[in-house]
Amino acid sequence: MSTKTNPGNFFEDFRLGQIITHATPRTLTPGDVALYTSLYEPRFAVQSSDAFARAVGYPQAPIDDLLAFHVVFGKTVPDISLNAVANLGYAECRFERAVYPGDTLATVSEVIGLKENSNRETGTVYVRSTGRNQKGEVVISYVRWVMVRKRDKAAQCMESLVPKLADRVDPSALGAAVPPLTLAAYDRALAGAPHVWGDYAVGEKIDHVDGMTVEEAEQQMATRLYQNTAKVHFNQHTEAKGRFGKRIIYGGVVISLARALSYNGLANAFHVAAINGGRHVAPLFSGDTVYAWSEILDKSEIAGRSDIGALRTRLVAVKNRDAADHPFKTAAGEYAEGVILDLDAWLVLPR
Amino acid sequence: MSTKTNPGNFFEDFRLGQIITHATPRTLTPGDVALYTSLYEPRFAVQSSDAFARAVGYPQAPIDDLLAFHVVFGKTVPDISLNAVANLGYAECRFERAVYPGDTLATVSEVIGLKENSNRETGTVYVRSTGRNQKGEVVISYVRWVMVRKRDKAAQCMESLVPKLADRVDPSALGAAVPPLTLAAYDRALAGAPHVWGDYAVGEKIDHVDGMTVEEAEQQMATRLYQNTAKVHFNQHTEAKGRFGKRIIYGGVVISLARALSYNGLANAFHVAAINGGRHVAPLFSGDTVYAWSEILDKSEIAGRSDIGALRTRLVAVKNRDAADHPFKTAAGEYAEGVILDLDAWLVLPR
Amino acid sequence: MSTKTNPGNFFEDFRLGQIITHATPRTLTPGDVALYTSLYEPRFAVQSSDAFARAVGYPQAPIDDLLAFHVVFGKTVPDISLNAVANLGYAECRFERAVYPGDTLATVSEVIGLKENSNRETGTVYVRSTGRNQKGEVVISYVRWVMVRKRDKAAQCMESLVPKLADRVDPSALGAAVPPLTLAAYDRALAGAPHVWGDYAVGEKIDHVDGMTVEEAEQQMATRLYQNTAKVHFNQHTEAKGRFGKRIIYGGVVISLARALSYNGLANAFHVAAINGGRHVAPLFSGDTVYAWSEILDKSEIAGRSDIGALRTRLVAVKNRDAADHPFKTAAGEYAEGVILDLDAWLVLPR
Repeated sequence: MSTKTNPGNFFEDFRLGQIITHATPRTLTPGDVALYTSLYEPRFAVQSSDAFARAVGYPQAPIDDLLAFHVVFGKTVPDISLNAVANLGYAECRFERAVYPGDTLATVSEVIGLKENSNRETGTVYVRSTGRNQKGEVVISYVRWVMVRKRDKAAQCMESLVPKLADRVDPSALGAAVPPLTLAAYDRALAGAPHVWGDYAVGEKIDHVDGMTVEEAEQQMATRLYQNTAKVHFNQHTEAKGRFGKRIIYGGVVISLARALSYNGLANAFHVAAINGGRHVAPLFSGDTVYAWSEILDKSEIAGRSDIGALRTRLVAVKNRDAADHPFKTAAGEYAEGVILDLDAWLVLPR
Repeated sequence: MSTKTNPGNFFEDFRLGQIITHATPRTLTPGDVALYTSLYEPRFAVQSSDAFARAVGYPQAPIDDLLAFHVVFGKTVPDISLNAVANLGYAECRFERAVYPGDTLATVSEVIGLKENSNRETGTVYVRSTGRNQKGEVVISYVRWVMVRKRDKAAQCMESLVPKLADRVDPSALGAAVPPLTLAAYDRALAGAPHVWGDYAVGEKIDHVDGMTVEEAEQQMATRLYQNTAKVHFNQHTEAKGRFGKRIIYGGVVISLARALSYNGLANAFHVAAINGGRHVAPLFSGDTVYAWSEILDKSEIAGRSDIGALRTRLVAVKNRDAADHPFKTAAGEYAEGVILDLDAWLVLPR
Repeated sequence: MSTKTNPGNFFEDFRLGQIITHATPRTLTPGDVALYTSLYEPRFAVQSSDAFARAVGYPQAPIDDLLAFHVVFGKTVPDISLNAVANLGYAECRFERAVYPGDTLATVSEVIGLKENSNRETGTVYVRSTGRNQKGEVVISYVRWVMVRKRDKAAQCMESLVPKLADRVDPSALGAAVPPLTLAAYDRALAGAPHVWGDYAVGEKIDHVDGMTVEEAEQQMATRLYQNTAKVHFNQHTEAKGRFGKRIIYGGVVISLARALSYNGLANAFHVAAINGGRHVAPLFSGDTVYAWSEILDKSEIAGRSDIGALRTRLVAVKNRDAADHPFKTAAGEYAEGVILDLDAWLVLPR
């Protein structure tokens, strides 16, 4: 048997402080942008129009933050989560620099936490992953933790550390990816709504109204576009015998769909500046329909920036039910039926 | 409940002479062109090859006329037809200027007609929509009319005007989007057929032979590419309870498929110069197979142009039957079984 | 009936020495590259990253060899195989020059062999097809042979010649598409594996492990992207009444999927330099899952090149079974159950 194929890392293969250089740097192009548009239908003016972006202060339309995120994330899969049982969470995700067509992204991860489970069959791995462009500049960094199988139950795992993670990204760290905006040139009619940062109130809930049904070909094309190799999204031959009997839609598809739907109600929230935390609550399958709603959790000015402000939002995606009643958690504190995503993020809007 | 989401306009919200600036200008790129090719398989040489386009007089390959049309059209949906019952027709559509990768398109509409229906539940809205590039130059203008629901049956609608629309675009208005062609460099072998303008006769009928089956993922990706937000194309959760029990394929997909199929028989008709009228006769669904045929309705020289001429054609698309017998209307004057599109257009060919 | 549509050539229409200029030159763009990535998930670093490609000696990331091949091949379909019964084989396929975004490809074929079958209903046509870029430089040339129907069983076919084809492309002809590589800059961690040319042994078998399920929308989008017009991939209305009752997935999809899967085990084999022979053993359908394995058949240095070497590999694709046991042929010499592709190719790796 050849030993040249990648079996992925198992829990006992990780070491605290280990640095992993992930394979296949990826140049993003207008082709990726077009596919992203065709897969989710984002409508934020800054990312959709070079003319609009230039008018307000960008050199050209930047690439959607989440497209860049999925590519940076995708690189980590063959090394971090090929043998994962579950993707447990995200934290401290910052979008630090705009990405433009022509930029090449590569990712490096550091193992910052390890915790074996008491059953000795699995353990949780915490990594801080950093995506850089061709100049070596950090564009995105984030922490995720994932439950990974052990190759050998008897293997000794001497290291144990659960890292302390911030509940939220500090607002002073936001907005670095946004150039100073020429607000006079920010045409709200072209952007699609009059409401800017000052128009939103903490506690406000917004049903994003529209629903989008997901097809298998779409989620496979999306996940391949990011060069994400997680097997459960692609292989019906094995998944037919698996837990659900079918392929699971990549969680990044849910995030992007919910974000695109959120345009209806948050049309000027053109930039995802940070993800404070995120959880894939339940799986999505081909044929399911996704709806979304948002709650404004907090508002913050950004130091030194009179042009933009930040809204901390909870973006909730649900399946096969609409979001008019803002489904979230039951009285018992469990996620309500149909909830599939709970994403806590800082969004940037013009002031 | 948040009031920040777009409920769309209802019939009583429109006013004669009202000007509506539609949201989200859109920069078209080589990525959009590649997706358009993968969705419909157009094979016209001018749009497919920079080298061919340059040889005959273009600065580079122009973007397919219908891709530009669908993008210009898509922008109007959230304001004009989100509450539509039916898309009734098109007229006076002119393709006035070539669109190239890098151009940004935005659309403005003027309400030019209003007519409440006698049931007082709906009314017809006529708009003239104009797509412009980043320089403010008109690239496409057209009229469409659509039946829109009223929010409130009791609402008073004082205005009533049915605009007078031309039966056809005057041939003198055609060809502005086509640079003077170097006919000696127009290689008919590379273009795919020897037949040019002079080879077609009024009354000639052409079966375009090939059939193309449409999948749900394809129509969703196409419709999102145009940032068209019409709900019936995307939401199986609601459509399952709707009139057909399934999503309806965007009519623009039918137009583009029929146009691409028409290459086989009209390979040198590389430019759609005008749409005189169009009607979506019946809905198309995923799994259906589209065929098409054309009839040459008229021929016209174009004033001042010895390089190109115009053919007025009726392009008919049918589903789940071939078009060898040119299905169109019954003896009673009804559209024949299977007919889904009746499109009257001016095409431009080399002479 | 119009005679302006293309009925395709029948066996008796071909003549030895005939030169056929195929229609629709095609400019390849970053959009095509993005679609190719989303359809197959290739991960070879040279094609994925401009930064990586430049570091090792390319002016930018070249287009995947097989994307260029499918486009060159697609052009030939309307003239060569529209009336084909079966695609019998490939030989002497050489990738002679790198293709970059912006290049325009066109194809010319020469009929080099003809052999009527004894049933007089069909015959085998051998063509050598040559794809050139906008400068007229040869980028890809190959021979394929295909069984084509006769229009008229009684037609006399006076010519008969079975061309002598090489069993393999001579290794001295390989590598012309690869610039001199700066091996010091070839980062194996970024490329995804430590194994280079010297690490592979003749006789070594590599299971590429992963499986990929194919959806109808994907294969249609892929085949249209190549402007390949073979009817069996697109028309469910006719295929429902055909031999299999469903559309057949384009063989080029199988080749590209198997090639992309082969990254896991051959991550540094970034260039397909030649295809010595190929056979589509059995059809693939939507919903089937493709796996692949490779055997190293031969190794060769390349004259004048100390930077790269060639591996001759057999790439075998199977469906709906994994490839851990390297399924190939039965004791009786028949292809084993599930085998769908047997492709003999020269791959280029760094030394």
